[in-house]
Amino acid sequence: MNENEIIGRIAKVFPDHRSRTVELGLGDDAALWRPRSGYQVVLTCDWFLEGTHFLRDKHPADAVGWKCLARAASDIAAMGAKPRCFLLSMAVPLALTGKWFDGFLRGLKRASSKLRCELAGGDTTRQEQMLINVTVIGEVRQGHALRRSGASAGDSLFVSGRLGEADAGLAEVKRQTGIARATNERVRKHLYPEPRLALGTWLAEGQLATAAMDLSDGLSSDLPRLCAASGVGARVEVDSLPVVNARNHDDALQLALHGGDDYELLFTVAKGDVARVPRAYRGLKLTRIGEITREKRVVLLKEGVTRKLEACGWDPFRK
Amino acid sequence: MNENEIIGRIAKVFPDHRSRTVELGLGDDAALWRPRSGYQVVLTCDWFLEGTHFLRDKHPADAVGWKCLARAASDIAAMGAKPRCFLLSMAVPLALTGKWFDGFLRGLKRASSKLRCELAGGDTTRQEQMLINVTVIGEVRQGHALRRSGASAGDSLFVSGRLGEADAGLAEVKRQTGIARATNERVRKHLYPEPRLALGTWLAEGQLATAAMDLSDGLSSDLPRLCAASGVGARVEVDSLPVVNARNHDDALQLALHGGDDYELLFTVAKGDVARVPRAYRGLKLTRIGEITREKRVVLLKEGVTRKLEACGWDPFRK
Repeated sequence: MNENEIIGRIAKVFPDHRSRTVELGLGDDAALWRPRSGYQVVLTCDWFLEGTHFLRDKHPADAVGWKCLARAASDIAAMGAKPRCFLLSMAVPLALTGKWFDGFLRGLKRASSKLRCELAGGDTTRQEQMLINVTVIGEVRQGHALRRSGASAGDSLFVSGRLGEADAGLAEVKRQTGIARATNERVRKHLYPEPRLALGTWLAEGQLATAAMDLSDGLSSDLPRLCAASGVGARVEVDSLPVVNARNHDDALQLALHGGDDYELLFTVAKGDVARVPRAYRGLKLTRIGEITREKRVVLLKEGVTRKLEACGWDPFRK
Repeated sequence: MNENEIIGRIAKVFPDHRSRTVELGLGDDAALWRPRSGYQVVLTCDWFLEGTHFLRDKHPADAVGWKCLARAASDIAAMGAKPRCFLLSMAVPLALTGKWFDGFLRGLKRASSKLRCELAGGDTTRQEQMLINVTVIGEVRQGHALRRSGASAGDSLFVSGRLGEADAGLAEVKRQTGIARATNERVRKHLYPEPRLALGTWLAEGQLATAAMDLSDGLSSDLPRLCAASGVGARVEVDSLPVVNARNHDDALQLALHGGDDYELLFTVAKGDVARVPRAYRGLKLTRIGEITREKRVVLLKEGVTRKLEACGWDPFRK
């Protein structure tokens, strides 16, 4: 097994379709691609590391393949853009070059087809641990990108989906013995998250959101970032949070506030446009969870009392 | 030290210049950028891993910063393109978040300025080992990119610079005690390689090269890749190779054939254009080292005798 053979196996699963998207893909020093006229290029990259983001003995190989691309594409969704192609950097342990690698490529290929995001290139090396880094290249109509910085005091704060679901799924994965099985919706969301691409482009094209980002580290870590970028604060109404069903409501609330990996969209809408936001977009629930404030603090409002929301989401440097 | 603080230190070294190159840089979900009209986007990424590509106790922090960007930009040079911006993915060990990180950023900033390649975004996490992945985004005039696939039988084969120099430099670094110092040209080339951007764009704009690639793994590993992409073979004339000065000529030859990390350009020129290739371009030596052949083998010609060139360059899967 040498580097050329690894690349050959990738190329077999991702044959060159002579597509019009990627003008030159695998097999050269770099890839060639062009956005449509009137569109900007959107660029993002994401780590997906064994031990940190997935476990070899817990996560199915095809889920690793799916998720490494899906989570990077979530940043493209958060910009209101469409993914077009991706670069895959991998460091593969020898032990994972066999059947595991086939499963990985199967999941990756499925995500690539579903998200309409073609493999354009990458870099491959060897390590004891599986290391993955994915760069996704997308496009958005000039001037239509959703930024974090556009929220103003008085805007309403919305989220898609249900918060804390993926983290609840992770807890179930840890309880299962052996390789995880998607026995329910929560585990499925942890293993095979779906970037909210349709919602993102709808918000961008309708110029409905004043600001947006995706929730990857948890609301309590991510919302302050949107607020800092916009120079505002926020008040989250606890009772309005779309939490998961749990025996203990407080557990569900903690998951909704601090659980990572949901890849839902957090967005703000100006007062005059709130009525244009439906309860659901293409079956995906949209919930108003609070309001943007002039005061630069992020607070929780519960039963008439406000308290500071502490950032307790995912931070690799705090662990 | 948390993730926001790490990003804050990066942002301080790479302030937002409100540049016209990157329309939206650090601090959002993704970056926004646009190629000039009539240009294609060129995309490449490269690993730079502690233990594999550099050693914490041998390589100066600023050389790690310089080289991680320079070597990724070398792929852009090999396409005849210009780098425009880059994404930086890092996994930083806690022990390297202090002074080491400042040195790293200093080297990275110097490369970014020299190569005119702006930081547009990235992803930061923590690991025991320093992991770096750099994506470089460049642009090339539509239809002018240098590909690996354009070589034909009868074309002459050229290289820039001197082959094996960086590997000779690495050997000296290993002999030095403690952190390496750039005591001579060979060590400097190992620590601070310079992607051949001016040569690449000159070859592309003058439509002089029929095919090109950069030499990162060594001639014996890289030349067969160019030949495979073009569906041809090559004959390398041993006596014409631009080798380093060494006491033992055979050592110098082995370095020239198999030494990695040179980041020189390997390119082919049609018979009728060979006279247009100068002996040097802007002070960088250009040497004709052989010819492209119809027969799909890569051979060495020495004193009238040919023998197969075995791929003995850098391959992480063979180590």
